[in-house]
Amino acid sequence: MSDTSPFAPPETSADLEEGTALTPKFDADGLVTCVATDAASGDVLMVAHMNAEALAKTIATGEAWYFSRSRRALWKKGETSGHTQRVVEMRIDCDQDAVWIKVEQIAGACHTGRRSCFYRAVPLGKSGAATLEFRDERVFDPNTAYRAKD
Amino acid sequence: MSDTSPFAPPETSADLEEGTALTPKFDADGLVTCVATDAASGDVLMVAHMNAEALAKTIATGEAWYFSRSRRALWKKGETSGHTQRVVEMRIDCDQDAVWIKVEQIAGACHTGRRSCFYRAVPLGKSGAATLEFRDERVFDPNTAYRAKD
Repeated sequence: MSDTSPFAPPETSADLEEGTALTPKFDADGLVTCVATDAASGDVLMVAHMNAEALAKTIATGEAWYFSRSRRALWKKGETSGHTQRVVEMRIDCDQDAVWIKVEQIAGACHTGRRSCFYRAVPLGKSGAATLEFRDERVFDPNTAYRAKD
Repeated sequence: MSDTSPFAPPETSADLEEGTALTPKFDADGLVTCVATDAASGDVLMVAHMNAEALAKTIATGEAWYFSRSRRALWKKGETSGHTQRVVEMRIDCDQDAVWIKVEQIAGACHTGRRSCFYRAVPLGKSGAATLEFRDERVFDPNTAYRAKD
């Protein structure tokens, strides 16, 4: 966890679950899981992570900030593509290690060009290998959206 | 990952994102993140984890199975409480390290007695300490639901 975290450490299990203090339970890497859903449709758009700074910035600004595990860097959603997320509501779960944000998503959340990262369905009722079914079309061209700006 | 995993290992990034093979990208602990939403309301009910066996059982049976990180054990949702989750649809995300299931939830998903684990809102637009706001009432008595059966 960052030394500059504005959040108090978690207290007892009872405080975590029934208290009114936001005391996020960051994991060993200093992260909580964040689920972003479309405020209009309810669809899950993406699952990502926030460190203390990303969580604090999201709360303060009402726009989604995350922490990239692969790049080890704070990022504002949409900073390159313009596909930002305005947070309509934020919820925290019982043990305060997961955050749910309902967002107004510009264009699409997924770097592949779809509205949601969850654009493929897994058929149920079968054992063994599963063949995924594409459900969502692209809503933007990722080659254009993520091209480095000159 | 379990030696008995029925899933092939992930291939290239392009295959992961645009292929039709389910090749989950389990983390160092052999887990993927799973988000369960209410098939009727769209609300996020819980965020948990699945190992290969839990994912395979969920796909095969159409009922939600998870892997408890704290107990290091496979568990069927509702096995003690009866509050099972019938999976209406399963989706996998772009890099295949997160699963979204839409479920029909019996009673409530949260061990505290609420329908959803996300029963508290975090007010936005403020810096520093946040005071959580309770939004959801209990829908069952956790002391009764999780009492060891005689």
